[in-house]
Amino acid sequence: MEKVKLLVATTNKGKLKEIVRILAPLGFEVVKPPHKLEVEETGETFLENAYLKAKAYYEEFGLPSLADDSGLVIEALGGYPGVYSSRFYSLEIGGRESPEPTESEANIRKVLRLMEGEENRRAKFVAFVVLYWEDKGLMAQGECEGEILKEKRGEKGFGYDPIFKPSGMDRSMAELEPEEKDKLSHRGRALRRLASLIEPLSSRLP
Amino acid sequence: MEKVKLLVATTNKGKLKEIVRILAPLGFEVVKPPHKLEVEETGETFLENAYLKAKAYYEEFGLPSLADDSGLVIEALGGYPGVYSSRFYSLEIGGRESPEPTESEANIRKVLRLMEGEENRRAKFVAFVVLYWEDKGLMAQGECEGEILKEKRGEKGFGYDPIFKPSGMDRSMAELEPEEKDKLSHRGRALRRLASLIEPLSSRLP
Repeated sequence: MEKVKLLVATTNKGKLKEIVRILAPLGFEVVKPPHKLEVEETGETFLENAYLKAKAYYEEFGLPSLADDSGLVIEALGGYPGVYSSRFYSLEIGGRESPEPTESEANIRKVLRLMEGEENRRAKFVAFVVLYWEDKGLMAQGECEGEILKEKRGEKGFGYDPIFKPSGMDRSMAELEPEEKDKLSHRGRALRRLASLIEPLSSRLP
Repeated sequence: MEKVKLLVATTNKGKLKEIVRILAPLGFEVVKPPHKLEVEETGETFLENAYLKAKAYYEEFGLPSLADDSGLVIEALGGYPGVYSSRFYSLEIGGRESPEPTESEANIRKVLRLMEGEENRRAKFVAFVVLYWEDKGLMAQGECEGEILKEKRGEKGFGYDPIFKPSGMDRSMAELEPEEKDKLSHRGRALRRLASLIEPLSSRLP
């Protein structure tokens, strides 16, 4: 069977790397976009944002496009940072942080600050993935439950991984080997579900 | 091949009738819900609302659930009534109408009132349909372009059909025979696209 070719609707390096790592062994040809698109993530939900990104890339490049929208949902923060995970540092709510040395570091600093002294550390990573082409699409979601650590641990992964400990593990997400992370991560779960939908449809994709 | 069984996530009679009429000939067994669910349509988009409804019905009844969220998008009204189509009469914006003799009549009255003297009559019906089960789903969208009439015409269909004339037709949506409507309607287009995704996946559905 010919390999199914999917365009990844992201230029986030961490995401891109994981998506290729998870989908390539399942027999997909994952293509990076020729250039970045500025997609306004105006949606108020992960699903809507994933849909907006996948649609924009499909319309620009004409290949079935796969987008991921994901984030960290912290119970004690009323669900924040949620859909604002990647730019939480810049939100007024909870107080702004300067994006130094990186946006990721600033996001983590803000979460640790807001969670100081908080006993309820429950949180989950949530991912919605959408494959879109020609007025239709497939979607899947995945979650990974865990808790917010009191300080950073580990150097692997990206984003909030250093302060998130998946339930049942004694290491942070950033201390896991890539294959360990993919097995239990929100993104790994969502992408494997999506893959199970793509395979039977492969002959219908443009 | 065994018939694929889908639960329709709606108790709107007009929608239910059309969904059965469009999907049954394509070989699907369309099941009505045992009872109505109160699903809060908190989404700000058709896709999000269709997803919320399909998910709620799947979680309650355990069958792959099909939801439709659709509405009328009027250019001169900045996209209204849009996702508020079914309860436009009750929105403060544009002025409330009393729901007499029916909510549909009140919705139509409000649109005709707001469009009085407006030369730009361009509008489109938009439908998003979602089939959801077990953390994943299929989606499709459909549109039907046309214009807002100056008065009601026809008795068929439901909702805003009497004041919508599809482009290229000389009759309102409510003057079309059911098969004519289904061929060009937003819902017909979206459902046929969705059906093309469901068929190859039928063996994977619970």
